[in-house]
Amino acid sequence: MMSTDDSLALHTDLYQINMAETYWEDKVHNRKAVFDLYFRKLPFGNGFALFAGLERIIDYIKNFQFSASDLTYLKEELGYGDEFLEYLKLVRFNGNIRSVREGEVVFGNEPVLRVEAALAEAQLVETALLNIVNYQTLIATKAARIKQVVNEQPLMEFGTRRAQEMDAAIWGTRAAFIGGFDATSNVRAGKLFGIPVSGTHAHAMIQAYKNEYTAFKKYARSHRDCVFLVDTYDTLKSGVPNAIKVAKELGDNINFEGIRLDSGDMAYYSKEARKMLDEAGFNETKIYASNDLDESTIISLQAQGAKIDAWGVGTKLITAYDQPALGAVYKLTAIENENGEMVDTIKISGNPEKVTTPGKKKLYRIVNMSNNHAEGDYVTLENEHPNEEEKLKMFHPVHTYISKFVTDFKAVNLHQDIFKDGNLIYQNPTLYEMKAYAKEQLNLFWDEYKRTTNPEEYAVDLSQKTWDNKMDNISEVREKVKVMVEND
Amino acid sequence: MMSTDDSLALHTDLYQINMAETYWEDKVHNRKAVFDLYFRKLPFGNGFALFAGLERIIDYIKNFQFSASDLTYLKEELGYGDEFLEYLKLVRFNGNIRSVREGEVVFGNEPVLRVEAALAEAQLVETALLNIVNYQTLIATKAARIKQVVNEQPLMEFGTRRAQEMDAAIWGTRAAFIGGFDATSNVRAGKLFGIPVSGTHAHAMIQAYKNEYTAFKKYARSHRDCVFLVDTYDTLKSGVPNAIKVAKELGDNINFEGIRLDSGDMAYYSKEARKMLDEAGFNETKIYASNDLDESTIISLQAQGAKIDAWGVGTKLITAYDQPALGAVYKLTAIENENGEMVDTIKISGNPEKVTTPGKKKLYRIVNMSNNHAEGDYVTLENEHPNEEEKLKMFHPVHTYISKFVTDFKAVNLHQDIFKDGNLIYQNPTLYEMKAYAKEQLNLFWDEYKRTTNPEEYAVDLSQKTWDNKMDNISEVREKVKVMVEND
Repeated sequence: MMSTDDSLALHTDLYQINMAETYWEDKVHNRKAVFDLYFRKLPFGNGFALFAGLERIIDYIKNFQFSASDLTYLKEELGYGDEFLEYLKLVRFNGNIRSVREGEVVFGNEPVLRVEAALAEAQLVETALLNIVNYQTLIATKAARIKQVVNEQPLMEFGTRRAQEMDAAIWGTRAAFIGGFDATSNVRAGKLFGIPVSGTHAHAMIQAYKNEYTAFKKYARSHRDCVFLVDTYDTLKSGVPNAIKVAKELGDNINFEGIRLDSGDMAYYSKEARKMLDEAGFNETKIYASNDLDESTIISLQAQGAKIDAWGVGTKLITAYDQPALGAVYKLTAIENENGEMVDTIKISGNPEKVTTPGKKKLYRIVNMSNNHAEGDYVTLENEHPNEEEKLKMFHPVHTYISKFVTDFKAVNLHQDIFKDGNLIYQNPTLYEMKAYAKEQLNLFWDEYKRTTNPEEYAVDLSQKTWDNKMDNISEVREKVKVMVEND
Repeated sequence: MMSTDDSLALHTDLYQINMAETYWEDKVHNRKAVFDLYFRKLPFGNGFALFAGLERIIDYIKNFQFSASDLTYLKEELGYGDEFLEYLKLVRFNGNIRSVREGEVVFGNEPVLRVEAALAEAQLVETALLNIVNYQTLIATKAARIKQVVNEQPLMEFGTRRAQEMDAAIWGTRAAFIGGFDATSNVRAGKLFGIPVSGTHAHAMIQAYKNEYTAFKKYARSHRDCVFLVDTYDTLKSGVPNAIKVAKELGDNINFEGIRLDSGDMAYYSKEARKMLDEAGFNETKIYASNDLDESTIISLQAQGAKIDAWGVGTKLITAYDQPALGAVYKLTAIENENGEMVDTIKISGNPEKVTTPGKKKLYRIVNMSNNHAEGDYVTLENEHPNEEEKLKMFHPVHTYISKFVTDFKAVNLHQDIFKDGNLIYQNPTLYEMKAYAKEQLNLFWDEYKRTTNPEEYAVDLSQKTWDNKMDNISEVREKVKVMVEND
């Protein structure tokens, strides 16, 4: 590296700084602005997502400050002026952030996080917020998909070597833990986040000794809990017999916890290995599998009757291999005008799904009290109070004929206050609490939304007022564009 | 985070520490071991890869040391014993590393990096080395594919918000620069690596002002160089006309460098926008495009005659969307025995491609002197000297009947000495030198290897001695397994 890496304030797109400069020169940088952070489409064809990344965001926002070396770079390499740099030197995030909890069940087109701050401050933090939420939410969701498939069997995250650089390895495994994984192989993640760590030995250790039997025995001498990797030379002819031989010889001196299969026909090998272990009296010894696994291969192995008790998942989880990016965006929904009034704003697109929803909004989950299941999510304007209504009309925000009335309900406000005037006012739960929260919240949803293939679409609806406001904004912009063209 | 993040020594899989413990207890931890780092299959169906990650590896190895908080965690949370922890406290990387340069053109099944070190030291650094090389090489390669398609047109990396966490954003954009990109939107990457940064404004700025015309004008007042984003409301009816209007009004007060298209039918919009710009006299104003681009969409836009002059590539590059992981592995090839002699080792697999190549090896590129093009890469044992041979037999390492003789050649040693006895002895080139090196090296290869679709397979062959040695090792292991089974 050529320079000091002592701040994350420059972890942003250049255009954010250029826009801040325009606002600052125009003296509108401190006008209040409201941005929604949301994604449009659920990843992996899944029926829900699990939100993650808030802890990292809190840390980033608390420490948001351009360092001396940042300012030197901006001045000397990019040529920004001294007065603007003086502004940047002093700028902190002084706004409000509301967000759903980590581990919350979330869906497309709902504001999972809302920033209300001085226009320039809100823009300067955009890129980092998206970078964090996009990846961590993606991995928590992928983990939850895999968890759906294995039920209560142990899941271990083994992906560090294939992760997209180091941050992905540790923040990804943390997100996977929230989503239902039980342990990680990454020791740094264990240290930083208190996640249980897991792992015994690799092929190299077998090769390092004169034969497999010796290697197992050496490992067993220094470790009471043993999971032997059995596929270095020949799984059924060498690996499993050697593991059994060592376990028999050492008896109660070790816990023969398991064998691990890492290549080959895992369905066949696991069934044969199970027989061999059982015949040798090791009925409690588990069979671990790890080899490019994901929810699909696990379902296939289960369908073949594979005798696998615990799963190590690497590449396909930590890179979200089948869809390696979530498309969360950050859109301006309201801005203070020259008279100090908040004015709603909209971004139009030829694609109806991409038109933004204007206004400062809230996010509710409508829970049917008769069965304690979620009926749909409900986006309202700031001043609406759905709990005061007797019956709620819910309708699809694009195909509006799809509608229903809900009566016996409660509307649960999903947003937590995180920052207020730049001060952290949120008590962050522990990682274990986040994981438990995710599990508990998933119980609110019918299984039809949670199956991994072709799930039912869960309703994310706009209140009538939010929808009307959106339509008014669309008309207004179209009128403006028309006038502009006619004047040309 | 629950604990201090003050070292990367724990950025490893738990099994590395467990194996180190076994070696240490067995007093074989300081036996010399040789590991090859290589990938088997080129990513994206590409005909070559570009190696990247060495600078980060150098930094990691130089600073490799368990911190006090690491040791406390290992003791208190994981229960390792005091004497072993004393060993870990003092352990540094004292071995040798040889590697190809960053920006080197590399292929499957050749040792791009070789570690020769005390067995335990070599294992402790494995995971981080793979994590770094896998991602950075993947992105440099993806960037080179995109570069092949755009020729000399400018390429900008815009992916931070969709990158897999923060490290991926900055190290990915650095790798993309080596692979042929010209600039990044990530300011931190600009600061750390000296990469040119690029970007003007976003949709939010247009929405923040009362109309698009005003927004462009405000931006132009604070920035002489202007690229206006024209798709906030209506590209052809509003965006382009407003950009032209502002540019005409401000005349020489600004450089009207370009407009940027970020949605919609880019082929159509670019052609129409080009006409409008030309008619207004802005023939030099460029059209920038950015919207989920990759080499395929760029080829398609080119085929449609799109009038695009510069490309912003985000998600598809920074996540290597169509193949988000490279499968590099790290395999033990030789180990010192109890008599102090080096013994070659092998890992067998039912899949012939997965059988490792034993022995301490070198990597040569065979360049045909008559045309200055690469004939193939050539893996030899340490003590071979291909340049002393008159004619070289090159044959496919699996399908051995595919063979040729090369006469008028030079064998270029691709490995550089990076660390010797733990000391850095390599003078790292600048990033600009790496980029230039990659470009220059690609000239050694026929176009048939470089096309993005169905490239020819470049030869990576083993010398006769390396091949014979591998066959001997296979027989030996098979014999061992047979004996083991017969004794059972």
